[in-house]
Amino acid sequence: MKVNPAHINTGEGQKLSIWHDNKHTASAWFRNLRDQICSEFEAIEEELSEGPHSKLKAGRFEQKKWDRGESDHPNESGSVLKGGGEMSLMRGRVFEKVGVNISTVHGVFSKDFAKKIPGGEDSDGQFWASGISLVAHMHSPLVPAVHMNTRMIVTSKGWFGGGADLNPMYEVKEDTIAFHNAFKECCDRHNPDYYPRFKKWCDEYFYIPHRKMARGVGGIFYDYIDNNDWHADFSFTQDVGKTFLNIYPKLVREHMHKPWTPAQREHQLVKRGYYAEYNLVYDRGTQFGLKTGGNTEAILMSLPPEAKWP
Amino acid sequence: MKVNPAHINTGEGQKLSIWHDNKHTASAWFRNLRDQICSEFEAIEEELSEGPHSKLKAGRFEQKKWDRGESDHPNESGSVLKGGGEMSLMRGRVFEKVGVNISTVHGVFSKDFAKKIPGGEDSDGQFWASGISLVAHMHSPLVPAVHMNTRMIVTSKGWFGGGADLNPMYEVKEDTIAFHNAFKECCDRHNPDYYPRFKKWCDEYFYIPHRKMARGVGGIFYDYIDNNDWHADFSFTQDVGKTFLNIYPKLVREHMHKPWTPAQREHQLVKRGYYAEYNLVYDRGTQFGLKTGGNTEAILMSLPPEAKWP
Repeated sequence: MKVNPAHINTGEGQKLSIWHDNKHTASAWFRNLRDQICSEFEAIEEELSEGPHSKLKAGRFEQKKWDRGESDHPNESGSVLKGGGEMSLMRGRVFEKVGVNISTVHGVFSKDFAKKIPGGEDSDGQFWASGISLVAHMHSPLVPAVHMNTRMIVTSKGWFGGGADLNPMYEVKEDTIAFHNAFKECCDRHNPDYYPRFKKWCDEYFYIPHRKMARGVGGIFYDYIDNNDWHADFSFTQDVGKTFLNIYPKLVREHMHKPWTPAQREHQLVKRGYYAEYNLVYDRGTQFGLKTGGNTEAILMSLPPEAKWP
Repeated sequence: MKVNPAHINTGEGQKLSIWHDNKHTASAWFRNLRDQICSEFEAIEEELSEGPHSKLKAGRFEQKKWDRGESDHPNESGSVLKGGGEMSLMRGRVFEKVGVNISTVHGVFSKDFAKKIPGGEDSDGQFWASGISLVAHMHSPLVPAVHMNTRMIVTSKGWFGGGADLNPMYEVKEDTIAFHNAFKECCDRHNPDYYPRFKKWCDEYFYIPHRKMARGVGGIFYDYIDNNDWHADFSFTQDVGKTFLNIYPKLVREHMHKPWTPAQREHQLVKRGYYAEYNLVYDRGTQFGLKTGGNTEAILMSLPPEAKWP
């Protein structure tokens, strides 16, 4: 979670009180978005009418709550973590495994970690964070996997972060263009600088150095967004969620009825191995979560249901 | 690769020249051990006469050499890495995937890394390292997976390191006892302090914090061995290799003819997911190798052929 100063939106930042006053509004939105996404994904499950899995039963999300309680006792990492979240997991016939997590946590970062977070020292480590995080691994190697995440964080500063990236097993140029166009239009509605900056950031972030390859075909990645207008910034983060909800189901429906070959499935399982490598070795959320006593089940929901290193 | 001072064998250490003089002896032994192990594992492949895979063709190792050349150009990590190695990989009917790597490399560590290695600063980063590394993932969930590694490293100091640990999918008490007894006897032949120290070190090292579980049932792990008697220390490291070659094939032969159920296979694939998590998140060799531009194919040969996060 090291801050890249080039990406921080500096300036005085808006009054902290507006971030505190709107915590409930933000977390309610993440929940609302979760509900919309889950119901759209369940609709897709219902719609499947052709292809290898069409005789199987349509999937349904199962929900599991977790709660850290309100204890002031520091965990192994020296941080105090309170609050909780809800994991929604579906093992369906289109979605082989899709996890949609929401969480709202607060507490006190350890001194070490507080230093690495904007405003963490000035807040004496006090923080509040809420967000939604989604990873979908699909049965069909012809339907792209996807990741989406948005969050709001408050220390002595407040900001939004998030993004979405597409992970096809076989790139379909039209899909890549449609996905990027959707997020470009979304970004452009809010700030003409956003898309080029956030697309680049995404390409840099989701790169697997030891494979010398991109994890997927990109999308957007953003962080530290505070433009002195909470409502405008929130509106952008909402728009990212809505854009995802609009574009990804289209790509799924486009390809989900096609049959696939065992060789294509093998290729998918190998690509998923790279995905697992990325998340376990480089993803800063995963690394941070695992090494600081976060909720393992929620953190690792992103791992593929099956993968191969042949 | 941070040094735990409790584990360093201090004292003056023996004259550096003896480490330099015996480089060839050590690397020739690692190669010899590799040959013995590969031929024993191929014999096991031949012997399979019952069970689900006995009609398949016996496996054979395939070898692949890699060579870094002798360029003085630093890689991405700022280190100069010369020399090379040989990867031996078998995809058989008993061994689903077994990799046996040997390598002999030398060069100059980056300043940062030199600080973390015993004697690295005093040698101006100059180092030499040779070793053997093995991971076996078995078709049958009733045959334990295993890891073994031994190495010799020279900076301005010289030392041996290594170990072996057993990873059953279902623990069989007799196997655990036999494996530990074999290495206890091996250790006791050289130093009565070794086994308790190296067993404990192994238990601590192969622990998956975020799962709050041990990776396997342990074995031994040792490092920084320099007792002012190169031949005795080398003899211990040789003995570790011979002990592995003696005990592991016995455990394989004990269980390889038994049939297994799909549920047992599922259990195996889930356990392998934990193994992959450990190697990618915590294993210091993997982390170091991947992040400093090592040979990705050799480093990741340890990953399971197939794994599940259902």
